[in-house]
Amino acid sequence: MAKQLIIDLYGCNNIILNNEKKIKAIAKMMVTSIGAQILEEHLRKFNPIGITYFAVISTSHFSIHTWPEHNYAAIDLFSCNDFDEKAFAENLRNEFQAKAAKTKLIQRSITDNE
Amino acid sequence: MAKQLIIDLYGCNNIILNNEKKIKAIAKMMVTSIGAQILEEHLRKFNPIGITYFAVISTSHFSIHTWPEHNYAAIDLFSCNDFDEKAFAENLRNEFQAKAAKTKLIQRSITDNE
Repeated sequence: MAKQLIIDLYGCNNIILNNEKKIKAIAKMMVTSIGAQILEEHLRKFNPIGITYFAVISTSHFSIHTWPEHNYAAIDLFSCNDFDEKAFAENLRNEFQAKAAKTKLIQRSITDNE
Repeated sequence: MAKQLIIDLYGCNNIILNNEKKIKAIAKMMVTSIGAQILEEHLRKFNPIGITYFAVISTSHFSIHTWPEHNYAAIDLFSCNDFDEKAFAENLRNEFQAKAAKTKLIQRSITDNE
């Protein structure tokens, strides 16, 4: 069984949302917090603003899309290992200084009969 | 409003699941089918088997994780543009020769009051 946490953050600090170094630092901290490692990471800046960040992690993937013009970030954590989704979402919310967060947790079975 | 389609494919052809060229070809075809373009793509092969594929696409992202030992693939399409999720899932199922598919469609609002 794998878990996918889908997080929408609203009212974020838009300077953070457009800062490559900060996005990478947040990703590293968040992935480390669940006991996983970043195996490779890729970041793309859009013109004029907005970032897509993606990390292959030891337990699957972590992605961040930002729309600074809407103070919005769309974040996914997909992990084969268990993690505390409430703590994870709350930490992310703090890091992006978000005013509101919506989360969805999805269970993904690796076998059809799980 | 953005849409995220989460697809779990079971009983896939495990030769396809572990074939880098085939995964990239499927990804290109699927992304093109929704009128989007791949801006950059990354593929990581795990030892001894398994692939993680990720593409930044013009409308957000497309990811494929494969577990050939379980004949399983976990696929996500996140797009700011609308697309036909049934056709998309059915085409993917055919490409991976999957015996079964589970899909979830998630609406992601870029603004808090959508």
